[in-house]
Amino acid sequence: MTATLVLTAADLARVLRRRGVDAVMDEAIAGLTAAFRDHDGDATVLRKRDGFIYPTGTLEWMPLLDRGGHSFVKIVGYHPGNVASARVPTVLSTFSQYHTETGHLAVLMDGVIPTAIRTGAASAIASRVLARPDSRVLGLIGCGAQAVTQLHALSRVFPLERVLAFDVDPGAAATLAARSVARVPIEVVELPALEADSDIICTATSVEAGRGPVMTGERTRPWLHVNAVGSDIPGKTELPLALLRASLVVPDYLAQAEVEGECQQLAPHEIGPDLIAVVKDEAGHAVHRERRTVFDSTGFSLEDRVMLELFVGHASALGLGRRLVIEGGGGDPLDPYVLVGSPD
Amino acid sequence: MTATLVLTAADLARVLRRRGVDAVMDEAIAGLTAAFRDHDGDATVLRKRDGFIYPTGTLEWMPLLDRGGHSFVKIVGYHPGNVASARVPTVLSTFSQYHTETGHLAVLMDGVIPTAIRTGAASAIASRVLARPDSRVLGLIGCGAQAVTQLHALSRVFPLERVLAFDVDPGAAATLAARSVARVPIEVVELPALEADSDIICTATSVEAGRGPVMTGERTRPWLHVNAVGSDIPGKTELPLALLRASLVVPDYLAQAEVEGECQQLAPHEIGPDLIAVVKDEAGHAVHRERRTVFDSTGFSLEDRVMLELFVGHASALGLGRRLVIEGGGGDPLDPYVLVGSPD
Repeated sequence: MTATLVLTAADLARVLRRRGVDAVMDEAIAGLTAAFRDHDGDATVLRKRDGFIYPTGTLEWMPLLDRGGHSFVKIVGYHPGNVASARVPTVLSTFSQYHTETGHLAVLMDGVIPTAIRTGAASAIASRVLARPDSRVLGLIGCGAQAVTQLHALSRVFPLERVLAFDVDPGAAATLAARSVARVPIEVVELPALEADSDIICTATSVEAGRGPVMTGERTRPWLHVNAVGSDIPGKTELPLALLRASLVVPDYLAQAEVEGECQQLAPHEIGPDLIAVVKDEAGHAVHRERRTVFDSTGFSLEDRVMLELFVGHASALGLGRRLVIEGGGGDPLDPYVLVGSPD
Repeated sequence: MTATLVLTAADLARVLRRRGVDAVMDEAIAGLTAAFRDHDGDATVLRKRDGFIYPTGTLEWMPLLDRGGHSFVKIVGYHPGNVASARVPTVLSTFSQYHTETGHLAVLMDGVIPTAIRTGAASAIASRVLARPDSRVLGLIGCGAQAVTQLHALSRVFPLERVLAFDVDPGAAATLAARSVARVPIEVVELPALEADSDIICTATSVEAGRGPVMTGERTRPWLHVNAVGSDIPGKTELPLALLRASLVVPDYLAQAEVEGECQQLAPHEIGPDLIAVVKDEAGHAVHRERRTVFDSTGFSLEDRVMLELFVGHASALGLGRRLVIEGGGGDPLDPYVLVGSPD
């Protein structure tokens, strides 16, 4: 039986260490841009996230089929109590890739690191089109793991001079600077100052379903662009309805955003083009830079598939990862007990 | 970050070697029986199989949630060209288990071996209730990997004296005896003789969608019980409609069997109780042993979850498997780059 390439988080961290976090983030932004620009819905079949929702969190699956290529499945858990109860990330996940010819599990890898990177990269791409290119002040509402890569990605695309940070947990805001890899000073501020001064805002919170919004939207810049990253389950939204209605709202993947993104709050005619449409015509959408815009980022498997390929490419070049024969079938494929007779 | 227990097919084969294939099959039959008998649809949430269907095969996901326990996902590929083109099994799969409290991937294991065993065990359980207890002649239509465990499981429950084997590929029929672990002689026969003489028949074929049935049903024993194992995609069926209509048809999991099992061919009123209902009242259903019956086995995640627990239990007791930290998050759970600074 063919082996499965297993890339652990430690392997992905080695890639980041050797290639540099900036270089990998730049590649993620370029890779996602190319995937959106070249996306063909007949060749690449997306499925919206589906899963189990229970009191402590959710476990969801995110499949993608590249016809004539590979299949991809991300399994992702969202458990907002993780950090406090178990000192593990709120978002845990693994990515897997399957040969379409045989169904063989070709790659299994950590999804925690690439999910954070691609979520940042997607915000950078949406902001590149929809925010003013001279945006200098970034506001971060929610200072957990996702804030690190939101800031990192945006710092690669904009000439940021100030980062304004707010979190309902003062500890998270206070430690963000120590976790940041972007070379921009971070100021912990109150929410009204953040809203009033930011050119771009990223919301990345664990607000409970039905307990939003996480900002007022009352005094904001006329050109404000918001990347709303936290919505990922039905009922959970972060932005006030009035701000959404005053903005061009660009969902990443409409079928999903309608169910679990900010778009839950909107009627179909209140929703703008999706991120793929925007990236396919960046110049045509630059007209929106002077008005308020919102990127409704629920996160979708096309982004994750790009990250899998990016990390697999680096790991192969660097000789990282291990190959494990996981699936049965060595020897006679018609004999499920064939391995029983093998030497121990 | 907590480690993931990885059990490869070689590990599962070690369990089978040390415990014995008969003992493990007996445990599988007992474990599935208990799971069906004790099943509570409020505590254990089943989802029917969903997936991608493309010219060379299918890739499907089969999730299950035990409230207050673990979540389970099986990913399974069905690629009927595998044996000829790549010398790998038609059915490839992996099982994974997640902590419901955190979403952590607790276990990843081969699914090829346990899928074959549980499919056999399910047929043994259905046959134990619905076939005559003195059934001595077993017919196998389709002599691939699944036939090995159908025969094995049924040999643990019935006093089999003859096994009649038929496959459209004479090579598969000819080699079945060499692959069998049951101590019953196997005769390669033509289909009419198999149909006429069998007390129990198992159909486990890779017939293409729309190309069935794989037996005529014209001359069969009045008490014939059929385990129809091969149907697992929409359009694929193995049994003639007249035989289904003349039989009590027991699906394993109705919501799935209606879509991809023999039940596709039937109206709702033509379908009998499901396997769980039958096992919850074995004595009450023994009345059907003298008539024709069909077990419509599509395979469902409740069976797979039992097998995961069975193999994890043995592997733990025997000290088998390896623990790998796959998911990111060691150290500060709020820092997706935390591992980048670790020593290489």
